[in-house]
Amino acid sequence: MHIKRNYTTFQMAWWTRFETLLFIMIIITWVALYYFLDLTWLKIPWTPLALIGTAVAFVIGFQNNAAYGRIWEARKIWGGIVNTSRTFGAFVQDMVNNDYAQAPMTDSALQKEISALTHRHIAWMTALRYAMREPRRWETTVHHKTNQEWGMRPPEKDAILEDELKPLISESDYAYVMGKSNKSTAILYLQSHHLKQLKEKGVLWEFSFLELEGIVKELFTLQGQSERIKNFPYPRHFATLNHFFMWIFVLLLPLSLVPQFAEIGLGIIDNSPLIGKIFMWFSIPFYVIVAWIFHTMERIGRTGENPFEGTANDVPISTIARGIEIDLRQNLGEPEDRIPQQFAVIKDTQF
Amino acid sequence: MHIKRNYTTFQMAWWTRFETLLFIMIIITWVALYYFLDLTWLKIPWTPLALIGTAVAFVIGFQNNAAYGRIWEARKIWGGIVNTSRTFGAFVQDMVNNDYAQAPMTDSALQKEISALTHRHIAWMTALRYAMREPRRWETTVHHKTNQEWGMRPPEKDAILEDELKPLISESDYAYVMGKSNKSTAILYLQSHHLKQLKEKGVLWEFSFLELEGIVKELFTLQGQSERIKNFPYPRHFATLNHFFMWIFVLLLPLSLVPQFAEIGLGIIDNSPLIGKIFMWFSIPFYVIVAWIFHTMERIGRTGENPFEGTANDVPISTIARGIEIDLRQNLGEPEDRIPQQFAVIKDTQF
Amino acid sequence: MHIKRNYTTFQMAWWTRFETLLFIMIIITWVALYYFLDLTWLKIPWTPLALIGTAVAFVIGFQNNAAYGRIWEARKIWGGIVNTSRTFGAFVQDMVNNDYAQAPMTDSALQKEISALTHRHIAWMTALRYAMREPRRWETTVHHKTNQEWGMRPPEKDAILEDELKPLISESDYAYVMGKSNKSTAILYLQSHHLKQLKEKGVLWEFSFLELEGIVKELFTLQGQSERIKNFPYPRHFATLNHFFMWIFVLLLPLSLVPQFAEIGLGIIDNSPLIGKIFMWFSIPFYVIVAWIFHTMERIGRTGENPFEGTANDVPISTIARGIEIDLRQNLGEPEDRIPQQFAVIKDTQF
Amino acid sequence: MHIKRNYTTFQMAWWTRFETLLFIMIIITWVALYYFLDLTWLKIPWTPLALIGTAVAFVIGFQNNAAYGRIWEARKIWGGIVNTSRTFGAFVQDMVNNDYAQAPMTDSALQKEISALTHRHIAWMTALRYAMREPRRWETTVHHKTNQEWGMRPPEKDAILEDELKPLISESDYAYVMGKSNKSTAILYLQSHHLKQLKEKGVLWEFSFLELEGIVKELFTLQGQSERIKNFPYPRHFATLNHFFMWIFVLLLPLSLVPQFAEIGLGIIDNSPLIGKIFMWFSIPFYVIVAWIFHTMERIGRTGENPFEGTANDVPISTIARGIEIDLRQNLGEPEDRIPQQFAVIKDTQF
Amino acid sequence: MHIKRNYTTFQMAWWTRFETLLFIMIIITWVALYYFLDLTWLKIPWTPLALIGTAVAFVIGFQNNAAYGRIWEARKIWGGIVNTSRTFGAFVQDMVNNDYAQAPMTDSALQKEISALTHRHIAWMTALRYAMREPRRWETTVHHKTNQEWGMRPPEKDAILEDELKPLISESDYAYVMGKSNKSTAILYLQSHHLKQLKEKGVLWEFSFLELEGIVKELFTLQGQSERIKNFPYPRHFATLNHFFMWIFVLLLPLSLVPQFAEIGLGIIDNSPLIGKIFMWFSIPFYVIVAWIFHTMERIGRTGENPFEGTANDVPISTIARGIEIDLRQNLGEPEDRIPQQFAVIKDTQF
Repeated sequence: MHIKRNYTTFQMAWWTRFETLLFIMIIITWVALYYFLDLTWLKIPWTPLALIGTAVAFVIGFQNNAAYGRIWEARKIWGGIVNTSRTFGAFVQDMVNNDYAQAPMTDSALQKEISALTHRHIAWMTALRYAMREPRRWETTVHHKTNQEWGMRPPEKDAILEDELKPLISESDYAYVMGKSNKSTAILYLQSHHLKQLKEKGVLWEFSFLELEGIVKELFTLQGQSERIKNFPYPRHFATLNHFFMWIFVLLLPLSLVPQFAEIGLGIIDNSPLIGKIFMWFSIPFYVIVAWIFHTMERIGRTGENPFEGTANDVPISTIARGIEIDLRQNLGEPEDRIPQQFAVIKDTQF
Repeated sequence: MHIKRNYTTFQMAWWTRFETLLFIMIIITWVALYYFLDLTWLKIPWTPLALIGTAVAFVIGFQNNAAYGRIWEARKIWGGIVNTSRTFGAFVQDMVNNDYAQAPMTDSALQKEISALTHRHIAWMTALRYAMREPRRWETTVHHKTNQEWGMRPPEKDAILEDELKPLISESDYAYVMGKSNKSTAILYLQSHHLKQLKEKGVLWEFSFLELEGIVKELFTLQGQSERIKNFPYPRHFATLNHFFMWIFVLLLPLSLVPQFAEIGLGIIDNSPLIGKIFMWFSIPFYVIVAWIFHTMERIGRTGENPFEGTANDVPISTIARGIEIDLRQNLGEPEDRIPQQFAVIKDTQF
Repeated sequence: MHIKRNYTTFQMAWWTRFETLLFIMIIITWVALYYFLDLTWLKIPWTPLALIGTAVAFVIGFQNNAAYGRIWEARKIWGGIVNTSRTFGAFVQDMVNNDYAQAPMTDSALQKEISALTHRHIAWMTALRYAMREPRRWETTVHHKTNQEWGMRPPEKDAILEDELKPLISESDYAYVMGKSNKSTAILYLQSHHLKQLKEKGVLWEFSFLELEGIVKELFTLQGQSERIKNFPYPRHFATLNHFFMWIFVLLLPLSLVPQFAEIGLGIIDNSPLIGKIFMWFSIPFYVIVAWIFHTMERIGRTGENPFEGTANDVPISTIARGIEIDLRQNLGEPEDRIPQQFAVIKDTQF
Repeated sequence: MHIKRNYTTFQMAWWTRFETLLFIMIIITWVALYYFLDLTWLKIPWTPLALIGTAVAFVIGFQNNAAYGRIWEARKIWGGIVNTSRTFGAFVQDMVNNDYAQAPMTDSALQKEISALTHRHIAWMTALRYAMREPRRWETTVHHKTNQEWGMRPPEKDAILEDELKPLISESDYAYVMGKSNKSTAILYLQSHHLKQLKEKGVLWEFSFLELEGIVKELFTLQGQSERIKNFPYPRHFATLNHFFMWIFVLLLPLSLVPQFAEIGLGIIDNSPLIGKIFMWFSIPFYVIVAWIFHTMERIGRTGENPFEGTANDVPISTIARGIEIDLRQNLGEPEDRIPQQFAVIKDTQF
Repeated sequence: MHIKRNYTTFQMAWWTRFETLLFIMIIITWVALYYFLDLTWLKIPWTPLALIGTAVAFVIGFQNNAAYGRIWEARKIWGGIVNTSRTFGAFVQDMVNNDYAQAPMTDSALQKEISALTHRHIAWMTALRYAMREPRRWETTVHHKTNQEWGMRPPEKDAILEDELKPLISESDYAYVMGKSNKSTAILYLQSHHLKQLKEKGVLWEFSFLELEGIVKELFTLQGQSERIKNFPYPRHFATLNHFFMWIFVLLLPLSLVPQFAEIGLGIIDNSPLIGKIFMWFSIPFYVIVAWIFHTMERIGRTGENPFEGTANDVPISTIARGIEIDLRQNLGEPEDRIPQQFAVIKDTQF
């Protein structure tokens, strides 16, 4: 997530330099053809082209709206993970106790159970954020040269899941989890089993058990929602077509624009023969601007489509998860030196 | 669900080749009429036609938005099935036990009950996905030649429901279910009866019984929501009209476009008599492009309207259901060889 | 609900024949005036008119979107009724029993109570669908000649509520319900009273009682939501204005269109004097098409505004309710001959 | 709420007569200036003006959509009040009883408690609807002369809250409520206290107490939602700007329109010198129509922004609240003569 | 939140005076260049520029819609805080009592516990509103000179959090809270711990404890939702691009507009040589108007993007929180002189 007010003009220009170059080459070719081969007879009328342009602007507007909807929904889901995690942290502390225990446990033993539940919860979040960072075949934004060159990468690329999980759960848990395909699900199964054991030991009142199982249910839901956004792209047939429409418009544009500038040139050739003759070359900057606007409008939507890919415009799930971890550990009363630092902001970007 | 970044240009061109051919024939006919019969007087003004075009682009934009809304909602519902299934799997394991039993059951007997509940749940999902694949009278996309020729079909076409259900439920259950019109509903009734029996045997605490009945309620809801999308198409009066509007625009277009090209030709006839005379023939590619854009924009919406039909752009319910099954069986501790494989991705398409 | 892929062209043309005729008469009158009185000086410029046209297309687009929203919400509510009804059917069967009874009832007595509750639920649905079919002052679509002539009417017009209710509830219940203005509400009060009596008899566990009261609450909510859509039309000031705007556009159109065709005629009068002179008559089909598109676009929205009115484009509540009834009775184990048939599909329309 | 299909043309014309007059005066002034001072050189080009017009139509479209969203949400909230009130009515009857009472109360004493709770609920609704009718500084629609002159006013203007509340609650309750700033909140506190007392007396089972406290919670929510719509207007900066944009467009329009008509006049001056000379006067009706459409489009949105203000287009909360009251009293078994009548429909308007 | 019907014209003009000046300077420069250097040959055609204008209006329309969505969601969340706070106030009063206590507490001791819970709740709201007022890097609206000069600032800038919190919670609580990074979360942990202690003392029934823990859960959710809107801006890549597109359009506009006015001047130069010659200067006011509309349309969206920043158009969270405080204290029965006043409305603005 970019955290400054705006990207700078330079960043924008640099980010789009390849297509800008391409547009310059396209239009120079066309103008040269028109100029040297005297193709001015070759033109298409504006009105139908403007109609295509309007339709394209319209469908891209809708697509961008949908892309925004996906980012916003993804952020809501991770907001939900924040809320439920805090609730889980507080509930566990106030519900695991000796009130109904036939064989009371010592305070430190209770505290250990509470710690184990809380740490396993952090493990769940960790497994989930690693799963969210795995590549999908339709997630190609991150491979785009202009997206890669900023040299930013989410923390999940710099440390492997195994190392992150080991300190958080017991060895037997670790073995169980690693044997399953969906690790987050496996961890939640373990949470549920642990709660059941606590209930059987009598340190978790039966109705508190139901309450906490309700939280486990909520976590299953939040995990599933996050996976849904990860695994179900913006429908590819819509995306492909909009991409095509935009390119058709951009490629047809010179056929209408250059003759129009040529005509303007013709109109002034009597007064200023020189300028009149070369006036069609002025269509170059204008074409580049129009093409750039339509292309960037579409690209900006594509960039935001997959909010967990790990680019500068994604939902900062690493930061969110780490923030919850700090919160949970502080309220567990852990010493400051055992609490990890928040991930650094790199080039104004949160991951 | 298509899982590559984009369809290729060839796929798009091939997929739309029939209408492209039709448009070529239409426009060639018109240009020939204009050219040989000298019909240039027959034209309609551009502005009102452009207005129709804008209005058509607008209503189709809304329709595509609604189509996307349907796909997305369908995916959410099946995401809900994922979440509730996992919860059900975990709850059953931790709630069916001897804690309140007056006559405790053996561990293996308990495990058998848990297995029976879990397998019956898989049976429910199976019945539901078969029901979702049944044809409806308004689901014609799948019969379109250009949709069929890719040779892909959902797994539900290759195996019959009876064979899938039999291994999952007992014989008496099977007989009961097959006698009912809505098989998924019947299976959920059986789940509820089973839970009640467990409660009466004392291996399911009464309040856990209520909790699990709550899950059954949720499954009824998810099933009903999925059936709602299946059984209630995008209102046919909206769809029909938009289809008509698009065709009216496409069919009127030559009357405005060909004369316009003819006029451009007239303007250059002095300098290049040959090109000027035949210039109207250049309207052919341009007409085809404009008509193709409007037609494809509308077709793309129609294609996605019914997200369970079994085409390449649908919600992959077979894959989702199988994924849950694998998850549930792994966490039941079943041996790997008894767990079925995920359905294969065919030509970049998940079903 | 129309259940074919599309309405046919003939159906569309027939359905809109009156306005088509009106448009033909309007435009013939204008062209005649222009032609015989030589009114060509009387024209209004296109650009402001096109602006009105765009604005009108825009607001009608929004209105149609809202109309679709109403239909879709109505369908969701009735989908909710499906889900809650099935849940109610299953819960009643598994929660009414002797587990906590001090004076156990016989099995057949229990079954009778379960039957009574289920049948009263069917009575509630029946009362609700009859209430939804009652006319409102703003529901005039059904009276439109072109909507009536297809000869289709919802089953609620062919049988009176009294006859439908009597077999479903006891005589005293019937007397109570008929004395109240809102019959569905009265029936739910009776359900709640019945549940309370079962609880007092001990055949309904107190917490199951709370659970079932929760279902009653949900039914109150679904009923209220359905009544809300019935009783609160799309705000009449929006609807009226959009209707006006559309007509203003359609009525101003000839003043701009006919002179434009006349001008085209003037342009070709040298080459083809005859055609040039009568060219303005060619504006007739074009005007009819433009006016028809704008009018139909608006009419289509109006048609779908009130989804319970009983027209061909409404939510098929009779079919839905009957479907639930069949479901409930089958799972009660009633013999096939006591279970009513689904309502017939008439002319591709479900009611 | 207007309950006829459409407002009549006369009502619309009368309702907008002041701005119509203003537009007529504006355009007459301009045409006179152009005509007598020969200002035809003073014109602005159409295309940028049309662009403004399109943008204005667009933002007003969005605003009207938001206004509709507010009305619809308000209606949903009051629909929720209907549903929860009915549920409350039924629950109170079936949950207040002697089942768990150590010192059973007489039936009539129980009935009195039930009555007290139900009547206090009606008091809550009454206090709420009076609060909703209080003026806010941004609610000025109701003061507009053309809105006032129809002589319709909501019933809350004809009777004071004090008189309405007194018969519904006890004297001590009345004193308590009147001492608080938010009367609805105070009444719900009293409901909660009463429920607690019933629980302590043993005539309300503890878990039923929790259930009913849940209903109180829901009522707090519904009340708060209704207050939210009342107290948070459509953001004034959006509204102000859209209002400005519309007026800018309407005021610039003559500078483009009159010269255009003058030009048309010039074109026909050879054939019909008289008509050609005065042709610019024909711009008057056309200008009035365009300006009226844009102004009314914006006004219609403003009119519906605040759905509780008490105008003809608002949510009929008085009628809804009275409807619930009748429902509740009928099901309490009160004699018909003690049940108030529904508020009358005045000039096709429900309040 | 602005609470008058509309901002005045002067306020609007003053608020936008810098950009207005900038536009005047831009256009004067261009016209001067055109006029003195006779650059009339330098022009770009209107149609593609109008297309850009339409596309820009479209994407800004969507952005403003999203901005409105953010404000409205923020208001809903704080409306939820109102509702849950009132519920909490009522529940605490009716659930903390001696009904299940083995060692009953005195009434005043009970009242003290109720007071402590309620005051700590006010502390939570206070901490939350201070957190919402902290600056973020993308919140720059408040620093804009034209936003600052009105001299209005939210009350959180005039009093520090420490002073506000101290009177509301005990010293040990205060120390605990101040040591945590997220103070609101810490306070909710304390609430939960307090509830647990009351349960252990027996003055809070176990099931009421669960109910109140449910409220704590809800407060965690509301707090997290509020933080989500605070911490996740409208995606900066969308915002940046729209900003760019708007400026491109505004900066290209003179190249098309001035020549157009020059041309109009040319057309009238025969009749009025003077006016014809200087006519291009008339483009100045028109350009300023068009540029102002597009710029303000975009600015208005930016202004509302971050609804907690503390500007005149934000959600009035200080007022809302204080309103709840008054409500809670009145219903606790506190004397009027201990209840703080509502924050003053400054220049028609609520904070």
